[in-house]
Amino acid sequence: MERGLLIVISGPSGAGKGTICKELIRKGKCWLSISATTRSPREGEVDGENYYFLSKEEFADKIKNNEFLEYAQVYNNYYGTPKKNIEEKLDAGIDVILEIDIQGALQVKEVWKEGVYIFILPPSMEELKKRIINRGSETEESLNTRFNSAYSELNYMGKYNYAVINDEVETAVQKIESIIMAEKCRVHRVKNNYLNKEAKIND
Amino acid sequence: MERGLLIVISGPSGAGKGTICKELIRKGKCWLSISATTRSPREGEVDGENYYFLSKEEFADKIKNNEFLEYAQVYNNYYGTPKKNIEEKLDAGIDVILEIDIQGALQVKEVWKEGVYIFILPPSMEELKKRIINRGSETEESLNTRFNSAYSELNYMGKYNYAVINDEVETAVQKIESIIMAEKCRVHRVKNNYLNKEAKIND
Repeated sequence: MERGLLIVISGPSGAGKGTICKELIRKGKCWLSISATTRSPREGEVDGENYYFLSKEEFADKIKNNEFLEYAQVYNNYYGTPKKNIEEKLDAGIDVILEIDIQGALQVKEVWKEGVYIFILPPSMEELKKRIINRGSETEESLNTRFNSAYSELNYMGKYNYAVINDEVETAVQKIESIIMAEKCRVHRVKNNYLNKEAKIND
Repeated sequence: MERGLLIVISGPSGAGKGTICKELIRKGKCWLSISATTRSPREGEVDGENYYFLSKEEFADKIKNNEFLEYAQVYNNYYGTPKKNIEEKLDAGIDVILEIDIQGALQVKEVWKEGVYIFILPPSMEELKKRIINRGSETEESLNTRFNSAYSELNYMGKYNYAVINDEVETAVQKIESIIMAEKCRVHRVKNNYLNKEAKIND
């Protein structure tokens, strides 16, 4: 069986990663990786669906046993990407989507070179500013901080394989589906499968 | 304006390159490069449509002036890929399809690194044999020669960026369309366009 692909969807906050991933999952072709966290579940959040909710001790054990693709501490809590489920899905030939911030994506890239790294861009920085404002509840100062951080994050684009401008969700999703299909046609992926099949037939 | 892509469609004879290219052109998204030749036009062939028909002197002049991406002598005649039209289409933002044998494709790759090189594979070597037989008018000997040459040509697959198995034309064409879309999302292609646009806005 052909192994699935790990598709890492990343980019500045406000670019629309979440909406794109939801749509990819809704179309039913990929499995969305679920993060682990030590923070408490919020109202309505389900363990194993929104997150794996772990105690700090459980999380520390998993770090020790090298069970995370990456992890980070945010304020008082830990967040991480568990390896096991991802490996299982990939082995079963299922493509896995990992939605993750830039810091996390670059960590994953260190250990998972064969992943497909896609940087999601807002249609323009002007539009990104509007989106941040529309989320509301931001002071002028925190708005500027968020905007400047998103702007400086564009510098990481070059570390990715692909960049997709999210001007319209449907178009962006189509582009990502094309990237997945194209990656499956990369010569190093097709070659061995094809030649092995032929070798077997000619045995 | 974004530059077009040069898409090189190549592979062993009998893999179905021609049918795939015709379908890509029919869908109207690309321009098919036209070869030059010194052979005489056959019944119904139109100059500038099927080929550019040139005298041996004209062809030799163009070789001297470096006007071909690649050329080759086949028996008593020359065949070549003129550069000028391709450059013009690419500059106008139009993607160009170049249907070419393996020898030619590898020559083009030497001088045109930024092209997209796609190797078309028959569904299986068994199927390729059937196709060669169905073309008829082959002696047992020439059939074996053709088949063995196609089989050994598989060794060149690794020099290409992508490999597409032509089990069904519609699926193969879809894969190539995905490859074209994905290549346009390659980070080095998107990055400069995006940052230049932003730089202009922020001027």
